[in-house]
Amino acid sequence: MFSFSSCPSFGRLVNELSKLPSVGGKTAFRLAYSILSGQPESGLRLSKAIASALEKTRYCESCFSFSEENLCAICLDGNRDSSKICVVEKPLDVFAIEKSGTFNGLYHVLHKLWSPLKGSQPDTCNIDRLLAKGATAEEVIIATPTTVEGDATALFIAEALNKRGIRTSRIAQGIPKGGELEYSDDVTLSYAFQGRVKL
Amino acid sequence: MFSFSSCPSFGRLVNELSKLPSVGGKTAFRLAYSILSGQPESGLRLSKAIASALEKTRYCESCFSFSEENLCAICLDGNRDSSKICVVEKPLDVFAIEKSGTFNGLYHVLHKLWSPLKGSQPDTCNIDRLLAKGATAEEVIIATPTTVEGDATALFIAEALNKRGIRTSRIAQGIPKGGELEYSDDVTLSYAFQGRVKL
Repeated sequence: MFSFSSCPSFGRLVNELSKLPSVGGKTAFRLAYSILSGQPESGLRLSKAIASALEKTRYCESCFSFSEENLCAICLDGNRDSSKICVVEKPLDVFAIEKSGTFNGLYHVLHKLWSPLKGSQPDTCNIDRLLAKGATAEEVIIATPTTVEGDATALFIAEALNKRGIRTSRIAQGIPKGGELEYSDDVTLSYAFQGRVKL
Repeated sequence: MFSFSSCPSFGRLVNELSKLPSVGGKTAFRLAYSILSGQPESGLRLSKAIASALEKTRYCESCFSFSEENLCAICLDGNRDSSKICVVEKPLDVFAIEKSGTFNGLYHVLHKLWSPLKGSQPDTCNIDRLLAKGATAEEVIIATPTTVEGDATALFIAEALNKRGIRTSRIAQGIPKGGELEYSDDVTLSYAFQGRVKL
């Protein structure tokens, strides 16, 4: 690595920034420069926001999404429909669904998918928690990613829940809004036909 | 903006990150998530690196590049060839040239280019400093960007220095290494022909 002998603290900043995902050496360089050449207050706000988020953020004890308290605002919100639980992989998925405003139930964040191809075992501990929580739910909507791991996890969870008589569903797979059929892959097209709905 | 009611400190971090150049909302989201889901020590190191760089970095009193002391390590280095001064736009350019290992002289960072199209005046204050410094130099190499502003600034500086009898040069403009002629623009090709060297 190039040594920033004339300004080591700049070098350390470039080094730390380049550890972020999809930030290469040149981008880290540019980001560090923009932090130093901008308003110092703005850089300090970023530094404090990182430290504060690291200090305050923990996992909600009920849904395991990000929270600043023992229970997150969604789990505590009496206006949410507790008869529906949406199962997702990571806290980021909760934010994405909340942003869409399409779901008013509760969440359950798995944090880890089952990867049968890697020979791993399903995270039964997390699924036991879901079973306990799902006992009173009318429907568990499984919104894990539409990848091999996401599908395997969805099937595993659905089987465990169905055995207890809990109704499960999987979010629809098909052509995304605005998508052209000619650019869709075969598997997506096949799912789109299988999942067709009556008009 | 979407409100992160279940975790405001995460929202503030996303907000601060999205102010960085070329970091949009989704990237800020992903970066914030990676900071929180990674090792806390790693996130704290980034937070401290930002605060420390902001606190320690200032401009070298001689070349105006980044430095932690009154004079930067390059200006203080007795092994550098003080008869050559390279004029660049910003501290980032100093790092880029240093990284290439192609130049062993001293630098002068302008921080601002002259933009005749915007009707601005050349920054004569900074050029006066260069004239004072360049008085003892054998050659001033002007490495401002090869844009309209960079070229205008280069010509303005060259004129001022030549009047004092200081030799100036401009870095070569031509086809970049590995470049295909068919993808080069007309102006670059024209510069490449004008600047041809004897083999």
